[in-house]
Amino acid sequence: MHRLYDYLASGNGYKVRLLLRLLRIPFERVEVDLLRGESRTPEFLAKNPEGRIPVLRLPDGTHLFESNAILCYLAEGTPYLPEERLARAQVLQWMFWEQYSHEPNVATVRHWVKLVGVPEDKRALLEQKRTLGVRALSVMEAHLEGRQYFVAERFTVADIALYAYTHVAPEGGFDLAPYPRLRAWLDRVSDRPGFTPITQP
Amino acid sequence: MHRLYDYLASGNGYKVRLLLRLLRIPFERVEVDLLRGESRTPEFLAKNPEGRIPVLRLPDGTHLFESNAILCYLAEGTPYLPEERLARAQVLQWMFWEQYSHEPNVATVRHWVKLVGVPEDKRALLEQKRTLGVRALSVMEAHLEGRQYFVAERFTVADIALYAYTHVAPEGGFDLAPYPRLRAWLDRVSDRPGFTPITQP
Repeated sequence: MHRLYDYLASGNGYKVRLLLRLLRIPFERVEVDLLRGESRTPEFLAKNPEGRIPVLRLPDGTHLFESNAILCYLAEGTPYLPEERLARAQVLQWMFWEQYSHEPNVATVRHWVKLVGVPEDKRALLEQKRTLGVRALSVMEAHLEGRQYFVAERFTVADIALYAYTHVAPEGGFDLAPYPRLRAWLDRVSDRPGFTPITQP
Repeated sequence: MHRLYDYLASGNGYKVRLLLRLLRIPFERVEVDLLRGESRTPEFLAKNPEGRIPVLRLPDGTHLFESNAILCYLAEGTPYLPEERLARAQVLQWMFWEQYSHEPNVATVRHWVKLVGVPEDKRALLEQKRTLGVRALSVMEAHLEGRQYFVAERFTVADIALYAYTHVAPEGGFDLAPYPRLRAWLDRVSDRPGFTPITQP
């Protein structure tokens, strides 16, 4: 059985949870309370030296970390990861973009605003991240012109990776009203058969 | 012919340059002067909406961005990207880790210190990034215990992605003396046949 070390409010954890359910792979979910430091214990650091969730324990005991790498692992050989070389690379392109240009801004702002409060010494950084987050949303809106999904006109792990923190961006104070194509894409994802929300443990 | 939009001092550009040469793929290199805003022109943003190098123009005219996605594209079907499912995922794991936990710290500190000067309002952030950069180097040192390369005991695109900014970390003031395994791995990479340095246009 797969075991997912997870944190319910985390978009990165949700990515893996959502794909496991879409693929109907049974798994045991272990909630790791980040706010109480449970991801920084020696025991957890042996699973992921970076001290972050999600971590997926495979049936053979191997621990895999980095949400987007786990998505690719699980999606291998399924319709969620194209076989074709260029489409595969474009899926990765948007997943690397998500981790570098989207998550550190959109997700971090939400984390501070919704979960832990804005640290006093981070107020200037928050505004900078908010600006970069708005830019990331604009890049997505532009890319979706004439497209239903991010790559190859089908629903892939690139969409799952991007959906996770985009759909909860308003919890960080981001207004999605100026992005009609983005909102239509969010609905397209959540209307898919087998979709489960981030709030479902 | 492939065309690489590049910037000589960039580790992200170097990753692609190095792999293209290891694979003996001929390419035309176009230097984009980031410091003069050449990656923010409308013409360049049509190639990569994020306004960053590297961008690889494929012979069919497609533009691919995100250095690590380009590495995977080029390495497909070569010894630099394992076929085996778990090893592939572990290569991606370290590449996503590089873009999230290593590059934003080790590379950004070097960029400020070596290339553009430390912005006055970024001094506190610089120290924070330096701490996170040291942590990233320590994670690498620990992982290399008993290993020659990062994944599957062979030289892969994970090593190329991690080599790029690690070997120039001292230019950002990072001291590599405390990391003997890391230094041995850097030598192992640079001793490989066909290796070319970051300074080679």
